[in-house]
Amino acid sequence: MGEFELIDRYFKRPVTRSPLGIGDDCALLAPAPGMQLAVSTDMLVEGRHFLSTVDPFALGHKALAVNLSDLAACGAKPLAFSLALSLPRVDESWLDAFSRGLFALADAHGCELVGGDTTQGPLNICITVFGEVPTGQALLRSGARDGDDIHVSGSLGDARLALEVFRGRLSVPGEVFEAARQRLEQPQPRVALGLALRGIASSAIDVSDGLLGDLGHILQQSGVGARIDSQTALGLLAAGEAGAMASGLLAQETRLELVLAGGDDYELLFTAPASIRANVQAAASACATPVTRIGRIERETGVRLVRADGTLMQGRYPSFDHFK
Amino acid sequence: MGEFELIDRYFKRPVTRSPLGIGDDCALLAPAPGMQLAVSTDMLVEGRHFLSTVDPFALGHKALAVNLSDLAACGAKPLAFSLALSLPRVDESWLDAFSRGLFALADAHGCELVGGDTTQGPLNICITVFGEVPTGQALLRSGARDGDDIHVSGSLGDARLALEVFRGRLSVPGEVFEAARQRLEQPQPRVALGLALRGIASSAIDVSDGLLGDLGHILQQSGVGARIDSQTALGLLAAGEAGAMASGLLAQETRLELVLAGGDDYELLFTAPASIRANVQAAASACATPVTRIGRIERETGVRLVRADGTLMQGRYPSFDHFK
Repeated sequence: MGEFELIDRYFKRPVTRSPLGIGDDCALLAPAPGMQLAVSTDMLVEGRHFLSTVDPFALGHKALAVNLSDLAACGAKPLAFSLALSLPRVDESWLDAFSRGLFALADAHGCELVGGDTTQGPLNICITVFGEVPTGQALLRSGARDGDDIHVSGSLGDARLALEVFRGRLSVPGEVFEAARQRLEQPQPRVALGLALRGIASSAIDVSDGLLGDLGHILQQSGVGARIDSQTALGLLAAGEAGAMASGLLAQETRLELVLAGGDDYELLFTAPASIRANVQAAASACATPVTRIGRIERETGVRLVRADGTLMQGRYPSFDHFK
Repeated sequence: MGEFELIDRYFKRPVTRSPLGIGDDCALLAPAPGMQLAVSTDMLVEGRHFLSTVDPFALGHKALAVNLSDLAACGAKPLAFSLALSLPRVDESWLDAFSRGLFALADAHGCELVGGDTTQGPLNICITVFGEVPTGQALLRSGARDGDDIHVSGSLGDARLALEVFRGRLSVPGEVFEAARQRLEQPQPRVALGLALRGIASSAIDVSDGLLGDLGHILQQSGVGARIDSQTALGLLAAGEAGAMASGLLAQETRLELVLAGGDDYELLFTAPASIRANVQAAASACATPVTRIGRIERETGVRLVRADGTLMQGRYPSFDHFK
């Protein structure tokens, strides 16, 4: 199968967002009047971002999900994406499953494939996603202020737990692993929450490198520091029963490290003034997304992890860095 | 060196086109009123699009050049780009040269880096480029009409000649090789010509897969056929003295194949009504870009290669396909 037949068979679908559809030198996009276009790019490499044994349906989902998560963190509404794909060979069953996973998530968010590139080489998936946000309303990393609450959506650490089980470094019962694996392989971007937080959140970022690492970006760009409640943070590992089981199986230090520095979570970490705490909860309820308040912004730079009794914890929880 | 330090050192520069600069979850772009945003993505893989021995300065240039060429083919003015880079290791001298080559071309076209991604993995460079074009004025592949002239800019076949010398399949004197190698490694995107052809060209595409292959896209999307003058096409191989030398060294069939199916040329192939031939030449002169008329569009589908005496040539000159 040639490059163009491959595109026709697996990736060409009706397009309404770009006047040209797929198949010219460029795609054309025009944000509505008063809107800015939010753009983000993520590249996924086999062996680093996913295992070679991953279900291609899940991989198609995840490749787009991590990009939609960036739009969510800006409060942007998904519009379109381009896909550049380097494939070692043309494997039709792989392409069929990958494209189905990709388009299932794209359709769920009304996000259209408008262009891209396909070539032969080591497996690499590079997606650039386009969203729109009213001019001046994008959620930024730079707006956190002294006294703001720090919130995070959903649960943290589950994806890393699954990865460590795959690596043979941790061991958990099958049900816990399956729940964690679902979070690793098919994260759900918090798009609805991002939209609901426009005008409420003072800053936002998505948690991809780990809570402390990504919080560090907010703190640095806002010129502030933070105090995090370690007991509340511990409660963020895994949702529901699996979490309760895991909490009895893993040492507290391990659980805290998974939550604080696990990465690959694709939850939203954001700040908002304490005075509008009710608005945050209303926004979370409106889109049925759990949100937990885990600490507060302080004038003093750096992060302070605090025990339930108010004493400071020591420790270093670096974020996942692709070149460390 | 960590991922963020790498970005800071080699890729973070002042940004004026995006209100956020580099370093938030998304870049924000807003085309001017009445403008559409033209978007294109190209992925370059080591061993397929470039040799591992290539000068990293030239590679930085080429990675952006092939994307700017897509904007040129749409008549779009370059604005910004995002860069996703997968690197086997952090090689500072490589990164220094690569980023210098990239930014030298970017600066020449007023095109700003607004975001991207960096990771570890097999060498892969994926650029998405953004340009703007007045609504409704983009040059498309679908507008060629019976009787239109077919034009091509610059020269064709040189890049493939250099590649075949690298592969040991052809042999030419050093001066010819150096001129051809320059075209392979540092193609010059025809941005000025693309802009000058707005309102003149009835269709356009950039020649990346080879003249006949890319002409095929125009013909298919326009529902027409074409007649190409093989003698004129032969004259397109290499510019100036090197071309004259090569023409005495390579068999005619080889030269014709290089011109018609060589690929990696990044010239503009376009059509325009014969009635405005003078406008085409004026546009070409205004941006000092040579343009050659190589044939005409016909109602009958398919491509007919014609000798100087008017007789038809037989032969099959497929375009380069990344999965054949």
